[in-house]
Amino acid sequence: MTSSSPSDRSAGRLLVVGAHSADFVWRAAGAVATFVQAGGEAKVVALTYGERGESGVLWQEEGQTEENVKRIRHQEAEKASQHLGASFEAFDLGDYPLVNDHSDIERLADLMREFAPTVVLTHPDKDPFNPDHPVAYEMVQKARLMTSGAGVESGFKTAPPSEFLVFEPHQPELCGFVPSVFVDITAVFEQKKAAMAEMKAQVYLQSYYAERAEHRGNHARKVTGNKEIRQAEAFMRLVPNVVDSL
Amino acid sequence: MTSSSPSDRSAGRLLVVGAHSADFVWRAAGAVATFVQAGGEAKVVALTYGERGESGVLWQEEGQTEENVKRIRHQEAEKASQHLGASFEAFDLGDYPLVNDHSDIERLADLMREFAPTVVLTHPDKDPFNPDHPVAYEMVQKARLMTSGAGVESGFKTAPPSEFLVFEPHQPELCGFVPSVFVDITAVFEQKKAAMAEMKAQVYLQSYYAERAEHRGNHARKVTGNKEIRQAEAFMRLVPNVVDSL
Amino acid sequence: MTSSSPSDRSAGRLLVVGAHSADFVWRAAGAVATFVQAGGEAKVVALTYGERGESGVLWQEEGQTEENVKRIRHQEAEKASQHLGASFEAFDLGDYPLVNDHSDIERLADLMREFAPTVVLTHPDKDPFNPDHPVAYEMVQKARLMTSGAGVESGFKTAPPSEFLVFEPHQPELCGFVPSVFVDITAVFEQKKAAMAEMKAQVYLQSYYAERAEHRGNHARKVTGNKEIRQAEAFMRLVPNVVDSL
Amino acid sequence: MTSSSPSDRSAGRLLVVGAHSADFVWRAAGAVATFVQAGGEAKVVALTYGERGESGVLWQEEGQTEENVKRIRHQEAEKASQHLGASFEAFDLGDYPLVNDHSDIERLADLMREFAPTVVLTHPDKDPFNPDHPVAYEMVQKARLMTSGAGVESGFKTAPPSEFLVFEPHQPELCGFVPSVFVDITAVFEQKKAAMAEMKAQVYLQSYYAERAEHRGNHARKVTGNKEIRQAEAFMRLVPNVVDSL
Amino acid sequence: MTSSSPSDRSAGRLLVVGAHSADFVWRAAGAVATFVQAGGEAKVVALTYGERGESGVLWQEEGQTEENVKRIRHQEAEKASQHLGASFEAFDLGDYPLVNDHSDIERLADLMREFAPTVVLTHPDKDPFNPDHPVAYEMVQKARLMTSGAGVESGFKTAPPSEFLVFEPHQPELCGFVPSVFVDITAVFEQKKAAMAEMKAQVYLQSYYAERAEHRGNHARKVTGNKEIRQAEAFMRLVPNVVDSL
Amino acid sequence: MTSSSPSDRSAGRLLVVGAHSADFVWRAAGAVATFVQAGGEAKVVALTYGERGESGVLWQEEGQTEENVKRIRHQEAEKASQHLGASFEAFDLGDYPLVNDHSDIERLADLMREFAPTVVLTHPDKDPFNPDHPVAYEMVQKARLMTSGAGVESGFKTAPPSEFLVFEPHQPELCGFVPSVFVDITAVFEQKKAAMAEMKAQVYLQSYYAERAEHRGNHARKVTGNKEIRQAEAFMRLVPNVVDSL
Repeated sequence: MTSSSPSDRSAGRLLVVGAHSADFVWRAAGAVATFVQAGGEAKVVALTYGERGESGVLWQEEGQTEENVKRIRHQEAEKASQHLGASFEAFDLGDYPLVNDHSDIERLADLMREFAPTVVLTHPDKDPFNPDHPVAYEMVQKARLMTSGAGVESGFKTAPPSEFLVFEPHQPELCGFVPSVFVDITAVFEQKKAAMAEMKAQVYLQSYYAERAEHRGNHARKVTGNKEIRQAEAFMRLVPNVVDSL
Repeated sequence: MTSSSPSDRSAGRLLVVGAHSADFVWRAAGAVATFVQAGGEAKVVALTYGERGESGVLWQEEGQTEENVKRIRHQEAEKASQHLGASFEAFDLGDYPLVNDHSDIERLADLMREFAPTVVLTHPDKDPFNPDHPVAYEMVQKARLMTSGAGVESGFKTAPPSEFLVFEPHQPELCGFVPSVFVDITAVFEQKKAAMAEMKAQVYLQSYYAERAEHRGNHARKVTGNKEIRQAEAFMRLVPNVVDSL
Repeated sequence: MTSSSPSDRSAGRLLVVGAHSADFVWRAAGAVATFVQAGGEAKVVALTYGERGESGVLWQEEGQTEENVKRIRHQEAEKASQHLGASFEAFDLGDYPLVNDHSDIERLADLMREFAPTVVLTHPDKDPFNPDHPVAYEMVQKARLMTSGAGVESGFKTAPPSEFLVFEPHQPELCGFVPSVFVDITAVFEQKKAAMAEMKAQVYLQSYYAERAEHRGNHARKVTGNKEIRQAEAFMRLVPNVVDSL
Repeated sequence: MTSSSPSDRSAGRLLVVGAHSADFVWRAAGAVATFVQAGGEAKVVALTYGERGESGVLWQEEGQTEENVKRIRHQEAEKASQHLGASFEAFDLGDYPLVNDHSDIERLADLMREFAPTVVLTHPDKDPFNPDHPVAYEMVQKARLMTSGAGVESGFKTAPPSEFLVFEPHQPELCGFVPSVFVDITAVFEQKKAAMAEMKAQVYLQSYYAERAEHRGNHARKVTGNKEIRQAEAFMRLVPNVVDSL
Repeated sequence: MTSSSPSDRSAGRLLVVGAHSADFVWRAAGAVATFVQAGGEAKVVALTYGERGESGVLWQEEGQTEENVKRIRHQEAEKASQHLGASFEAFDLGDYPLVNDHSDIERLADLMREFAPTVVLTHPDKDPFNPDHPVAYEMVQKARLMTSGAGVESGFKTAPPSEFLVFEPHQPELCGFVPSVFVDITAVFEQKKAAMAEMKAQVYLQSYYAERAEHRGNHARKVTGNKEIRQAEAFMRLVPNVVDSL
Repeated sequence: MTSSSPSDRSAGRLLVVGAHSADFVWRAAGAVATFVQAGGEAKVVALTYGERGESGVLWQEEGQTEENVKRIRHQEAEKASQHLGASFEAFDLGDYPLVNDHSDIERLADLMREFAPTVVLTHPDKDPFNPDHPVAYEMVQKARLMTSGAGVESGFKTAPPSEFLVFEPHQPELCGFVPSVFVDITAVFEQKKAAMAEMKAQVYLQSYYAERAEHRGNHARKVTGNKEIRQAEAFMRLVPNVVDSL
């Protein structure tokens, strides 16, 4: 049996922060769509467009410019977000490398104070295959703590503490990623596929992550015995959550 | 905000297995009471009475016998369970040391096939201060896997997979215990105190674990910002849970 | 660029030990086939037939007997081994639970002294979803050490030390599995598929592990930049290997 | 500056338990000698003589018998202990494999109740190169907990809790060994060398562990800046110690 | 039995570095007081006043200014230090966030070269609830290494290596904190309470950390069997210490 | 039996990056020499000369200047490299502290794009005894990822992915170093000794690391049973390698 989720997420706000504009699609599209479907609000922030490190196909076109690459990547991410019911915002901080800058952390903290997320998702703190993912983690982690103070009244504007989880990286075991919660995305899997299909330059990843969702669905079935789960996404909690009952 | 729990636990069955008959009181009484209050059914199993290793005060009485120590410990645990709304069963396997025996694992597996728990709680797999706690873990872990097969049809009677968590040991950091979920026990804290009060030989632990619940309440407040949480208990998930939405 | 493998494995002997008779197919069929193709000799040992825990489909046939289940499982594993060029041997120790018995460890140690493997593969030491896999690990680990003495002359017959690796479990992150070597199985992938196809009761796993091999192939491509790798298998070394040069 | 040690160890009793009769010499001879020199009492227990796995040279003599190997190993260990000022006792449980038996744990527990050690030393819980070392750990760990109860009065004879450390294995990183305390053995290094010289069949290890003591001395110098430290031994605490002041 | 501490700490100098001006009180006041009582010298450095993140109550007063908050926090920390016999110095680097700046590390290194601490205490390197604690760790760690060179003569002024430990964070398990030494603070507990009482804005923490000291006292009693220990503080060594004898 | 290495390393390029100009000698001289002997090309990069932290003896000469220290250290490293058949290049970034600067990472990335290493060696990411080693790791790790993109075509010049390993630090267990591969350096040990002998200010380390190579040789013998191995060096892989067959 799947643990039933809170019946009402009308007060919930989900913030997903990716290093590059396509990250949220592969790693959390199903979680975004289920959150919205349950009545919550979801916002996707891309720190960069991945214009240098993850847009190789676009650069193969003659006369390609960075500005045009960014424009295309923005459109793709925006359309993908729309399939999921989320808003999309890009910080355009520049990739490969994404640089951890205090003013950008402050900008992210301001956004958190404004949006007041109840759940925050981002990359794990380690990735031996990507220079930008751990930087994104570091920025989100700092910004999140900068908005909450030490759990007491603070000398600055705060937002309530949020649940904090990381989504699945490409090679999980080498990133120290150990799943602690599976989200059943069976009901929104077509939305995830539609969102992935917007990322036209990365056809291979569309089938890779569709199969990955099937595999996580298999894991979620084994964990629950619930045969109606077909697809799932995996997340790792960094901070305990609080429940009224197990 | 505390994550609201499933509104209906009428289908839920919680199984708590302790090495000694008082373990469940200090470590999970609040989780038992909230589970029952949410409509679920709870069963406590004690593998031993702790008659040798944890009943020193009783042995100070002249003419004390092992049989009498067990009888007193049984009564205490039964009364404590009643305060929480749970049933109590003792396996009486003998403590210091509790020995891991295949037939006892099979007995526990049979109980699991019968009771079909949706959630199982026991000790962590490591405790440098107690010889019996890791043995209890090993037995519960084995019995649990013996009841579910490999997630497919099996050549024996199975029960649906259960959520699997461990409760807080006395010196958590030295037992590899890292909390992944706090249960808000504010509403049932008086029940936990009443259950603890039954353990007459361990007065010191009553105040120790009352304070500990306050401290975990403080941690749960920091995690959620919810000032109405006063007391909590901490648990560590060993297997991911599945949710419909974050 | 893939590290080229030793050009000649004529002196190599690979021993794969699985808890159940189908384990080697999903987890190491490609490694077996490449080893044999490189000139080595491979032997598969199944400690049990998985007749209780992993043969559910067979038990659905009316009038099924344990003996018949074992017979079918033996045939399947033998045919699968033939596709890979390996010999197959079953210890038939009984599954769910596989019990760690000293005489069975001694039997395995005798086999190791006789076969003198240069590489040993088995399950990881942890698996929260399977009661038998960690027992298989424990038995292989003990038997392997029982055949080598303390690296000095011993008072009993020994075999030279072997490389020691574990193969990929079903939910790797939850089993502490971190890949340290990928074997490129592109050239033998059809053999792996043929071997998997023998396991007629587990059709779903055939496509699951075919996709998994594609995913590991993707990981291996990223690690090397070699686009000719299509499928791979992942292994984790437990003991350092020794090379003449990096 | 080396932390000065307690000026008076007259109340101290050190128990060193090795799987084989020579283990204490390579790994803890210096700690034994300094303990005795500081006024304490030291006892060495060997669970086996290492007659099968670690006495290969002796078996090269024609007509060798197990009884004679044990006799020689007993003499060597006894002489080595005398160089250090410790008593020596052998349990003669049989090696390769040493088997974890409840009655032997009870025998060890009885010895602990009698000797009432203030410090216990043994092998780490993991050793991918030796089948007996982790078993020795397991037996010592169990016996130690069986003698102390749960920190309260118990229904059986107890001894006061002891400090609990493991000594350095042959390949420390692969055994999870991380040093937490270095013992300066400069003043007793000649005694350690004399003890090692008794182990006539293992000449290579004499120079290996003499160099190792020099290396640990180098580490201890770096940690303290004290250039008078020449040789040291490394240990890992498993349980915190208690001090009156840092 | 508590390990007796060095009888004479007249040559000892303890440096405690906290991110905010109240940190040392909750986490190390007892260690400071026992160190001073044993004849050593203690200095407390606060990198910031915690004026933004940990002074919420002060900001509730109308017309409050940052300068005034800092002034009050300075007085409180100074008085608390006096209760313990330590000197107090504030770097006033600004909190939430504390920024890791090379010139500030150099300032801290200069202080270390001057004060030449024999023991250094600070925060653990990880804290999912506080943005400044890990930065403080990083600064102390760097400054400490900048003062010692590579254990050889260096091209700059050095100080002798110091023992290096971290004190207990608020949620220890989630900060990777595992105690390796308990300091018995029974004799100075009134001083710790007096120091805590100076932190007038954080009344709740006064009782929280008084109870915590009782709990650590319980742990220290279990570890030693010494019933005279009532309160303790827990620390984690990052670098082995060196002793003349176990 | 030592795994035979690839018979032809003519396409291989090894890049070794040390924080200070002597690091490569103690930690990887044998790996460099065997790589070159197998037909590969090797380049050593020193980020600094270690002129402040590791050249104490040179500073004892009256009238010594930083420029002269650097000149001597350059000559020593160059001669040592020549003994091994490698080229040497110094970045001269300044030590104690080495500062992680984006432009220096870019310089290192340019060098990697040019040299296109097939194997990269550097320090582990942690070292509680050295402020510069983890910074060197961080810089190498970043530069390496900056040259490869996300395994796809990128908007900048890339080099093929390289194998990535760290070499042995001075106190391995405290740096999280666990060996995963031993390189047999028996055939080139005289070259390593000659290279070490160039480091005239560090005579002690010459014998320390000669003994260390003997010890690692002992470990490699135990792992393989190959008695012809006399000396070895230990490395830890950070990213799996890919092989055609185990």
